[in-house]
Amino acid sequence: MKQISLADLRPLPLGQVYRLIEPGPVVLVTTALHGRPNAMAMSWHTMMEFEPPLVGCVISGRNATFEVLKTTKECVIAIPTVEIAEKVVRCGNTSGRKVDKLARFRLTPLAASRVKAPLVAECYANLECRLVDARMAEKYNFFVLRVLKAWIDPSRKRARTIHHMGRGVFMVAGRTIRLPSRMK
Amino acid sequence: MKQISLADLRPLPLGQVYRLIEPGPVVLVTTALHGRPNAMAMSWHTMMEFEPPLVGCVISGRNATFEVLKTTKECVIAIPTVEIAEKVVRCGNTSGRKVDKLARFRLTPLAASRVKAPLVAECYANLECRLVDARMAEKYNFFVLRVLKAWIDPSRKRARTIHHMGRGVFMVAGRTIRLPSRMK
Repeated sequence: MKQISLADLRPLPLGQVYRLIEPGPVVLVTTALHGRPNAMAMSWHTMMEFEPPLVGCVISGRNATFEVLKTTKECVIAIPTVEIAEKVVRCGNTSGRKVDKLARFRLTPLAASRVKAPLVAECYANLECRLVDARMAEKYNFFVLRVLKAWIDPSRKRARTIHHMGRGVFMVAGRTIRLPSRMK
Repeated sequence: MKQISLADLRPLPLGQVYRLIEPGPVVLVTTALHGRPNAMAMSWHTMMEFEPPLVGCVISGRNATFEVLKTTKECVIAIPTVEIAEKVVRCGNTSGRKVDKLARFRLTPLAASRVKAPLVAECYANLECRLVDARMAEKYNFFVLRVLKAWIDPSRKRARTIHHMGRGVFMVAGRTIRLPSRMK
């Protein structure tokens, strides 16, 4: 895979973000605390509003990210494809409390434009997010994020996202069909 | 498609429900008010807890289901596959305020065991749900549902769910891969 820099990415209009999140891909969530980056794998997320895009997500209190997100109020949702599925799973299997997972699994952090958390160069899309509602964090580990800026890699023609089905089984995005939907 | 009855379905252990919701399929949400069933298409949902399974979902106040769910505190999440994708989209395109959508689109309601909302016979899986938290309904149209009972059609060997990508484009679930995940 060629080395990607921010100049290779294209800003995605915020009103299009739902098209990335709605199909339910496994994502990476990156954070940064005192300059130290971290990344976790996440599948429990949903769109909550089209524009400005809101994403709701569940991040367990057992994850290092839980406290860092509450403290910094910033993260990046990075959307990987099947080419790096193994790195994503290894991020999910490892705690970031002692390990720089991005470095260990050779994922390249890129400076984001609006938050201190890094983009992940190898990911198809990256969403810079601000925490806007943590009222359900104590009871449900549920956070509401607002997407401030979205990036997409225009060199990827067919982004085969991965979708977790439990017990180490992942569905890979298949063919697309077009139906006369009046849904947005 | 052969006619399915409740006897053809198998109860799914509640701890397995996340394996259906987590990959992000388009689902139907059925309700019943005064014996009158309704169904809507929904893509904005997330798992929130493994067991008892909690599902968070966004249902717009523009949908008839919003008020009915708040009133009856019950619904069924029915998970369709690509074979009935066109019916699902037609449910999404039509308001249930004046039309019995299940009848119009030839979807078969089956009596559920724990709620008055119907199961959908043609769907691969059906989750009987109770509304347990509507505190975020006003601000975000967000509801927390508890799955009381889950049914799966054991005759389906390969359930090709559909995943909304916006503008009438749907991704059909592709191949599965296995990776050594420690995620549940």
